[in-house]
Amino acid sequence: MANQVMPNLLLKRAFLTPDRPAIAFKNETYSFKEVYEKSYQIAGQLLHLGLAKGEYAGVLLSNHADTAFIYLAFQLLDVKAVILNNRLTAEEIAWQLNDSKAVHIITEKTFTKKYEEINVVLPKLTVIPKEELFAANFIEPKITDEISLDDVCTVMYTSGTTGHPKGVLQTYGNHWWSAVGSALNLGLSEKDCWLCVVPMFHISGYSILIRSIVYGMRMVILDTFKENEVIKTIQSEKVTIMSVVSTMLIRIEAELGESRLPKEFRCMLLGGGPAAKSLLENCMVKDIPIFQTYGMTETSSQIVTLSPEYSLSKLGSAGKPLFPSQLKIIDSNGEEAGNKTAGEIIVKGPNVTIGYLNREEESSKKIVNGWLSTGDIGYLDEDGFLYVLDRRSDLIISGGENVYPAEIEGVLISHPDIADAGVIGVKDENWGEVPVAFLSGKLELKKDEITEFCLQKLAKYKVPKQFYFIEQIPRNAAKKILRRELRQYLKELKRQDCN
Amino acid sequence: MANQVMPNLLLKRAFLTPDRPAIAFKNETYSFKEVYEKSYQIAGQLLHLGLAKGEYAGVLLSNHADTAFIYLAFQLLDVKAVILNNRLTAEEIAWQLNDSKAVHIITEKTFTKKYEEINVVLPKLTVIPKEELFAANFIEPKITDEISLDDVCTVMYTSGTTGHPKGVLQTYGNHWWSAVGSALNLGLSEKDCWLCVVPMFHISGYSILIRSIVYGMRMVILDTFKENEVIKTIQSEKVTIMSVVSTMLIRIEAELGESRLPKEFRCMLLGGGPAAKSLLENCMVKDIPIFQTYGMTETSSQIVTLSPEYSLSKLGSAGKPLFPSQLKIIDSNGEEAGNKTAGEIIVKGPNVTIGYLNREEESSKKIVNGWLSTGDIGYLDEDGFLYVLDRRSDLIISGGENVYPAEIEGVLISHPDIADAGVIGVKDENWGEVPVAFLSGKLELKKDEITEFCLQKLAKYKVPKQFYFIEQIPRNAAKKILRRELRQYLKELKRQDCN
Repeated sequence: MANQVMPNLLLKRAFLTPDRPAIAFKNETYSFKEVYEKSYQIAGQLLHLGLAKGEYAGVLLSNHADTAFIYLAFQLLDVKAVILNNRLTAEEIAWQLNDSKAVHIITEKTFTKKYEEINVVLPKLTVIPKEELFAANFIEPKITDEISLDDVCTVMYTSGTTGHPKGVLQTYGNHWWSAVGSALNLGLSEKDCWLCVVPMFHISGYSILIRSIVYGMRMVILDTFKENEVIKTIQSEKVTIMSVVSTMLIRIEAELGESRLPKEFRCMLLGGGPAAKSLLENCMVKDIPIFQTYGMTETSSQIVTLSPEYSLSKLGSAGKPLFPSQLKIIDSNGEEAGNKTAGEIIVKGPNVTIGYLNREEESSKKIVNGWLSTGDIGYLDEDGFLYVLDRRSDLIISGGENVYPAEIEGVLISHPDIADAGVIGVKDENWGEVPVAFLSGKLELKKDEITEFCLQKLAKYKVPKQFYFIEQIPRNAAKKILRRELRQYLKELKRQDCN
Repeated sequence: MANQVMPNLLLKRAFLTPDRPAIAFKNETYSFKEVYEKSYQIAGQLLHLGLAKGEYAGVLLSNHADTAFIYLAFQLLDVKAVILNNRLTAEEIAWQLNDSKAVHIITEKTFTKKYEEINVVLPKLTVIPKEELFAANFIEPKITDEISLDDVCTVMYTSGTTGHPKGVLQTYGNHWWSAVGSALNLGLSEKDCWLCVVPMFHISGYSILIRSIVYGMRMVILDTFKENEVIKTIQSEKVTIMSVVSTMLIRIEAELGESRLPKEFRCMLLGGGPAAKSLLENCMVKDIPIFQTYGMTETSSQIVTLSPEYSLSKLGSAGKPLFPSQLKIIDSNGEEAGNKTAGEIIVKGPNVTIGYLNREEESSKKIVNGWLSTGDIGYLDEDGFLYVLDRRSDLIISGGENVYPAEIEGVLISHPDIADAGVIGVKDENWGEVPVAFLSGKLELKKDEITEFCLQKLAKYKVPKQFYFIEQIPRNAAKKILRRELRQYLKELKRQDCN
């Protein structure tokens, strides 16, 4: 059989249920027909501004209805969206745009300072703030009315142990199957409404948009997280499902106090790293229906979710792989580990990325016969439920954002006074984890100076909260940093705060 | 990308939700774990009896939980089921078994007479009644734990204008996408329960089994249609969805009288040919939530369904194509017809058959670039809703069963005293339509004699209810029967009943 084709998602949805409410933002609600008309208009303007079918173009936007329309206009034109985390520095974003060979970026005036800096690094890049896009001339666009599930739809960068971020290719099929796998697990009701307060530039937010279109479901977008507003919105908009990370859930749970969420609210989808057992237990007391999940950019959102009937008996587990997907635990010999034996989590399924943009070698190392090595550590219990122990050995998850030590170390070492650097995560009450750094080199450096230096090159959430000077960064024979030893230092050794 | 693979459907479902109720039949309800254990046991017994992965084997069974277990055991072994309509004559079934090169048939003792006759025609065929299968020895089976969506799962024969039936290939992907397309349209609730009183040997019944496994949904099987029992079962089993054909719905609606179905009952999926507007209106008065559909064996059940929000304003329409599927109306020049212009319905989508078994030439004529010519006539209104005018020009639908005039004509002409024959459908209060025949040849033939002759070779529902002798069967230059003229005869000309 040839590659599976399907109607363009938005085109089909607007045809099927034009009058259903689709996207709510602030005081506006748009029907699917209106979403289509907006996106169609933008598609014609993008075309006028020179974007072309098949190209990779950057998108740097905050949560807003416009962001949905622009993402969908890209799909109508079959322009591949390189979706940029708006918390990154100009330098980080420029690196991703350069790596993806994007020549256009759609952004917004609130990021003027950032995109002007990007333009300095990449003078050939055409920067199009949405305010100019919406005022541009219009060319009747030729809509891509049929898509192949194998075609790339979006690219999202994620760092790894190697330091530099890699562009994760997400096909239409990845997004489609992710939406279908979730629906088969959570069910699907005409009354459903999904609240999106997670960033739309993350797969957690983008996947809500896809579900809205595929299911014909209303989504409500919020541009900032404020726990009291979230609770009010759940009530006023009759929200039934919401995606959160632990940091958000802690604040919602606290804000609720003695009150409860409406009984129509049926699913709090909790992703973005491990959650404290105490939090899960507190939520249970308040009847917050938590669905723990495990997923990543490479799996186009959740791949493992705890089914409703097990939320109590398997508290703390991420659940079982969604219907179309598979999972194994592999020991250090590459063999399947027995029950209750920890090992690396590997996953397979139609929602798993086909690879990294322009990185065939790395892709073929990380994805073998369709099985993706996640680098995360976990085990399966006797009933096949997954318990995630450690994300990617050295990965730090801070407020739901992935922070890769190697990337921070690379920046630190680039400072002329720093000889070597090692970064680990430490527990933090608000953010889950925060990065701290160990440094060797000249001792006269001040914390403020290093912080300032890092802020030039790294998103704020990646900048270490503490710096410790030590004589030598522990490394093994292969020069790999021994992070476990750094953790030991923190616990046991006499510390020398550089501040 | 390689062919899309997925976990074996039953294996995965039994792993995900082992304890959920899966199949209810008479006084027994089996959980998904129990369904798996039953099917696994049968798979091992089939293996012992010589069935092998990849072979095509016949299945001749009536509605029963065992039938589900056997179908699923076939899937576990990756044996392709040639699913036989148990209302066919031994001769008709033997023809299909021979055509599909099946060497085994799984059947049941209630069909002893029929399978003994089949065995006379096909002496090399190994007949295995389920009573013997269940008593057979067991070999630990090697389960097909991963399926390719492109692999054939089932074959169902359907006749055409050419007379002889053709085996429609239905892949795992066809069934999967059909189930997903339906869920995206109807929604999916933990409380759902689908009543199967349509034959499991039809795609209408088999597709309920697939949905049960894919959704993790309870299905209730009834072996005969009795309107009072159906209503009782809906109440006692808390059925929410039911598949019906018009004939059934007429009887349910009448039986209900002044009473109503429980309010949890949310969908009466009406397929198998056009429904009278008066029936739809009567149902509306009684709050029976009718979802009109259009589909066929080649589309692995419904491909077009009327969404809930349009059941009133588009009464009589079959709706719009399900999310993954597409539809066009083609005029006699092969061009897309404008709105409100009748033409042939052509369809495309991942639920559409890949072709007919061992009939590559016919397949490539009927399916061009993924578009299947249905032969049915219809039009789209200004909003893109489908109205089906005529099934396959000459197709007769009697009580939900397809009856092909060419097949009956072939049998009639084989009688030594009949020179020529033409068959058309006439309206019937109970069955929607029934076939009647026009004959030319010796006039001394009696109705009873011809009926008796037909019953030897044709399923009862295919045997004409009336025979009319005329001088000559009207044919065009290409010798094609002019059925419209036969319809005119019935209306206007002096008739000569052969009885």
